[in-house]
Amino acid sequence: VREDELLGHIAARSADLSARYPRVIVGPGDDAAVVRTPAGGELLITTDQLIEGRHFTPGTAIDLIARKAVARSVSDIAAMGGLPVWALATAILPDGYAHADALFDAMAKWAKRWNCPLVGGDIAGSPGPLALSVTVAGEMPPGASPILRSGARAGDAIGVSGPLGGSLASGRHLTFEPRLDIAAVLASRRGEVRAAMDLSDGLGIDADRMARASGVVIEIEAGAIPLAASSEPGLSWLDACRDGEDYELLVALAPGTRFEGVTIVGTCRERRAGEPAHAAIVEPGGARHAGGSLGWDHQSHAQPRDR
Amino acid sequence: VREDELLGHIAARSADLSARYPRVIVGPGDDAAVVRTPAGGELLITTDQLIEGRHFTPGTAIDLIARKAVARSVSDIAAMGGLPVWALATAILPDGYAHADALFDAMAKWAKRWNCPLVGGDIAGSPGPLALSVTVAGEMPPGASPILRSGARAGDAIGVSGPLGGSLASGRHLTFEPRLDIAAVLASRRGEVRAAMDLSDGLGIDADRMARASGVVIEIEAGAIPLAASSEPGLSWLDACRDGEDYELLVALAPGTRFEGVTIVGTCRERRAGEPAHAAIVEPGGARHAGGSLGWDHQSHAQPRDR
Repeated sequence: VREDELLGHIAARSADLSARYPRVIVGPGDDAAVVRTPAGGELLITTDQLIEGRHFTPGTAIDLIARKAVARSVSDIAAMGGLPVWALATAILPDGYAHADALFDAMAKWAKRWNCPLVGGDIAGSPGPLALSVTVAGEMPPGASPILRSGARAGDAIGVSGPLGGSLASGRHLTFEPRLDIAAVLASRRGEVRAAMDLSDGLGIDADRMARASGVVIEIEAGAIPLAASSEPGLSWLDACRDGEDYELLVALAPGTRFEGVTIVGTCRERRAGEPAHAAIVEPGGARHAGGSLGWDHQSHAQPRDR
Repeated sequence: VREDELLGHIAARSADLSARYPRVIVGPGDDAAVVRTPAGGELLITTDQLIEGRHFTPGTAIDLIARKAVARSVSDIAAMGGLPVWALATAILPDGYAHADALFDAMAKWAKRWNCPLVGGDIAGSPGPLALSVTVAGEMPPGASPILRSGARAGDAIGVSGPLGGSLASGRHLTFEPRLDIAAVLASRRGEVRAAMDLSDGLGIDADRMARASGVVIEIEAGAIPLAASSEPGLSWLDACRDGEDYELLVALAPGTRFEGVTIVGTCRERRAGEPAHAAIVEPGGARHAGGSLGWDHQSHAQPRDR
């Protein structure tokens, strides 16, 4: 099963949840779900997993494993414009694993670092690889509504919050800082921000997901994509689009809007007759690449590509 | 690492959370955490895992795997006296797993069955065994406060919500009904209910946990324990105490209080000088067994005991 096919199945089966369950405001398919709390407020909620051999290599320092496990879910809260408030964690520990206390301490430390203390969790043993999941809840700043990935409209500018590419090769995927800083700014000027998501699988596939969720076409100029400083010579727009694990924010901004720290890389337009919603990367010479054919599908690769 | 040692470490490191984080009302160590929501309400939140070869045997029907994964976390919400309202799920699928859609559909079905629709989740591939986690949020009925495991007091009666023992051998661990019915009754008469938890690891070890959380001694009469009807001849009080996976509720009731559906199996008394908080099972002849030495530690056994 390819990850996107399964996610499509889940989204289709979940489409009626908010109509049938009054607590559900936004169900599966965005960076985080949005639920209504008993007293009438809104809560963001997301979960993500980290598996040895899939999201980090054996031998990675415990502190970095813990950091990435927490940071991935915090990044999802940032992508909604939210602030983390608490977290849960689960761990599957290989039989005989000797570092459980240290792993918990590191996860608790990083969770506090991003203001979402671990309030609960579960531990189980298994012959399999080390696997963690972290669930993070978030709140929107007063007066702001969650920023969905489905809000992009024709005429919007498409921007990214930082340089992309080479995250796995450089080790940055273990040390990235979730973009809570930019998220707070986006939330404070919510009327100018149409859509947001975090870049976990690569600008190509993630922009395609935003385009499909929004029912528009996103066109990204290859030459406008900011490239991460890297020891790899020749990091190109293609690496930036397909490496994944950047955890920068991808945003759609209302026409004329600009934010410090957000680099504009493209635009959003209406679909033409018969044209599906999609993202395309356009080279300076005019060559077009389907965004959905780039990027990294965690489900279908045993290892990241440089790997 | 034995599960209880690690849980003790986590509880010790988490003791100051509610003082430092205003959103945290009850942190790690109970059946569910209790958090304060933005608008001032309370939310229960819990997570549990289900791993092939550990919590179910290979070849178990997908529907039953999904059912148990959801039911375990719903049972934790019931143990607080709460009502489930939404859920998240994660899945680690063995590479090449062909039943992902069916597994999701079954989990979604059971989540709706207990009124906690799946609002989000994550999927990853792995060479390891199939592993699921389900996070469930719950709410207390209006006016009721969560029932903690730490509230038992000397003089309380100790009761269980149903017959115990033989759950794994009989297959009941796959088909149990989380005790939301009893939970609702307990919540409606909250002043008479001192403490509650669900019986996942066996009456012996779980009663010991309640005793230690409450700082009291719990004494259970072996002859008073209701035994599950079973095709196994000779199911004894010892099986009922150590088999685990019952998912009945263990409750401490204020003196003189009785509830339909709750069988009284023991009492709660103060510690004597130098005596640690603990639970003991007392045979009709007077022989005492430490509750903490019975029951099943998921972490330290490769397989359930009948196995």
